[in-house]
Amino acid sequence: MIERLALIGVGLIGGSLALALRAADRVGEIVGCGRARANLERALALQVIDRIAEDPAEAAQGADLVFVAVPLGAMRAVFQALRGHLGAETILTDAGSVKGSVIEDARAVFGSIPPRLVPGHPIAGTEHSGVEAAFAELYQNRRVILTPLPETDPHALQRVAQMWQACGAEVDLMSVAQHDEVLAATSHLPHMLAFGLVDSLARMRENDEIFRYAAGGFRDFTRIASSNPEMWRDICLANREPLSAVLGRFSVELADLADSIRRADGERLLEIFSRAKAARDRYVDRGRIEGPRSGS
Amino acid sequence: MIERLALIGVGLIGGSLALALRAADRVGEIVGCGRARANLERALALQVIDRIAEDPAEAAQGADLVFVAVPLGAMRAVFQALRGHLGAETILTDAGSVKGSVIEDARAVFGSIPPRLVPGHPIAGTEHSGVEAAFAELYQNRRVILTPLPETDPHALQRVAQMWQACGAEVDLMSVAQHDEVLAATSHLPHMLAFGLVDSLARMRENDEIFRYAAGGFRDFTRIASSNPEMWRDICLANREPLSAVLGRFSVELADLADSIRRADGERLLEIFSRAKAARDRYVDRGRIEGPRSGS
Repeated sequence: MIERLALIGVGLIGGSLALALRAADRVGEIVGCGRARANLERALALQVIDRIAEDPAEAAQGADLVFVAVPLGAMRAVFQALRGHLGAETILTDAGSVKGSVIEDARAVFGSIPPRLVPGHPIAGTEHSGVEAAFAELYQNRRVILTPLPETDPHALQRVAQMWQACGAEVDLMSVAQHDEVLAATSHLPHMLAFGLVDSLARMRENDEIFRYAAGGFRDFTRIASSNPEMWRDICLANREPLSAVLGRFSVELADLADSIRRADGERLLEIFSRAKAARDRYVDRGRIEGPRSGS
Repeated sequence: MIERLALIGVGLIGGSLALALRAADRVGEIVGCGRARANLERALALQVIDRIAEDPAEAAQGADLVFVAVPLGAMRAVFQALRGHLGAETILTDAGSVKGSVIEDARAVFGSIPPRLVPGHPIAGTEHSGVEAAFAELYQNRRVILTPLPETDPHALQRVAQMWQACGAEVDLMSVAQHDEVLAATSHLPHMLAFGLVDSLARMRENDEIFRYAAGGFRDFTRIASSNPEMWRDICLANREPLSAVLGRFSVELADLADSIRRADGERLLEIFSRAKAARDRYVDRGRIEGPRSGS
C-alpha cells in the first residue's frame, strides 16, 4: 500500500500508473505536479490525481513514493527540485526510457546514488501523450525493467517491484548498460526508421499522392512516427552511443539489401526475408512479443 | 454479374475476391487452379471455389473473367499456360504488386498487349497467406489501382472496375510507372525496413534477450516482416529501379539522422521528428491512410 504517491509528470505513463494503482486499491492520496496547468486540471477532473502541487518539492512532502515520469531532458531539473525535500523513508523511482542518463543526472544532483532511488522503465506506451491518453490497463502483461545499482536499498527495490506487479506488470532486473542496449535495438532504432521513413516520403514532391495509397501495413509500420518529438529527441541524446551502434549495424544490413536488389540477387533476398520471418514468427509464437497493440 | 470466374491462384487475394463476390451475389460458378493441391481442396471445402481445374487453360474454359493472383515470379508461366485458351470475350485481370513487370510478361507471351487485359492491384492484404487467410471483407474501403494501357478495351476496364466496387473497394486509375513508384515508396520500402530490422536483430548474439523486451510498438512495426519471403523476393526483383531509388533516398535520410545523433544535434532531430509526426497525423486525420489494421 502506498499511502501517498507523488507523481512528477501526469501524462500517459504517470496517469496510467495512478489509475492502475487505484483500480488495484493499492494507493491512498495521489498528488500530481507538472509543467502544463491545463493538463493537471484535467487530471484532477478525471480523478487521476487528488490534488495539484505547485512544484516537485511540494508534491514530495509526506509522500512514501515519488514517481518521476517526465521527458529525459527534464529529469535533472526535477531531481534538483527534489533535493532536500525527500523524507528519510521516501522511495524515488522513475520511468525514463534510458537509464544511463537518469543515473548520471542523479549522481550529478545528489552527489552519489541515493539508496532509495530505484531506476525503472515500464516497457509500455502508445503514440499518444497527456493524461487523457492514460488508462488503468496500460501495464497489464507488460514488462517493467528495474536497474538497481549496488547502492540500491533492497527494501526500496522490493516495494517498487510490488507496485508494478500490482498494476499487472512483470518485473525484470537488468544492468543499466544492458537495458540501454536492449532498448536501443528494440525501441529506439524502430522509432528512427519510422520517423525517417515518414519524413523522407513527406519530403517527396508527390507526397499527397503517395500517402493516399498507403495501406494498412504502412499505417501499422508508421504508427510510432506519431510519437512525441521532444521525448524522442531527448531519448536520442540520452542514449547516443548504444543507438549509434545499432544504427550502424542496421545501415550495413540495409546496404546489403539495397545491393542485393540492384544486383537482382534473388537468393540473397530470399535468405534475408526468410530469416527475418522465421525470427519474428518464432518469437511471436513463443509469446515473446507481448501485449495488446498500442492504441490508434 | 460474372457467370464464370476463373481464379488462377486461390490464396488470400484470390480467395477473398471469391468470397466478396459471392457475398455481393455477383458471381455464378468459381473455378480455381493453383500449385498446391491441398490448398485447392481446402478452398473447395470452404466453398471459396466450386470446382478445381487442373491447369490455367482448363480453368479459363468458358470463363468470362480470369483473375490471376499468383506471385510475380509465376506470372509469365501463367500467361503462357493461358495463351490460346482465352475466349474472344474473356477478360483477363491480375493482382500483381508491380505493374511494369506484369505488362512486360504479357507483351513477351502474347506478342502485344491483349485489349481485354486489365492490369490491376488491390492495395490490401495481411501478413498471412493461403486460402484459410481469405475473408470477404478484405477489400472493403480499400483502394484498387487499375493501370489501363492505350490498348485496353474500355468495356473490359469498366467491368473490372465494377467487380472491385462490388467488393466494397474504391477504384483508381494510374499509369504503370506512377503505380510502381508509389508502391515502392509506401509498401516495398517499408517491407525492406521491417525485414532488415528483424534480420539485423536476429543476427545479434543476444537476440533471445532482445526480442523478449520488444513491446507493442515493435510488434506493430515488424508485423510486415512476417510476410511471405518468396512473394517479396519477386516484388524486389520486379520493381528494382523504383525500389532502389527510394532505398537510396531513405539511406540519405537515415545517414542524416545517425549523424545528428552522433553530433548530439537536438535541434535537427526535433525538426525531423516534428515534420514526420505532422505528416503522419495530417494524413491519418484526413483519412488518407485508411482501412482496418491488417490481422495479427
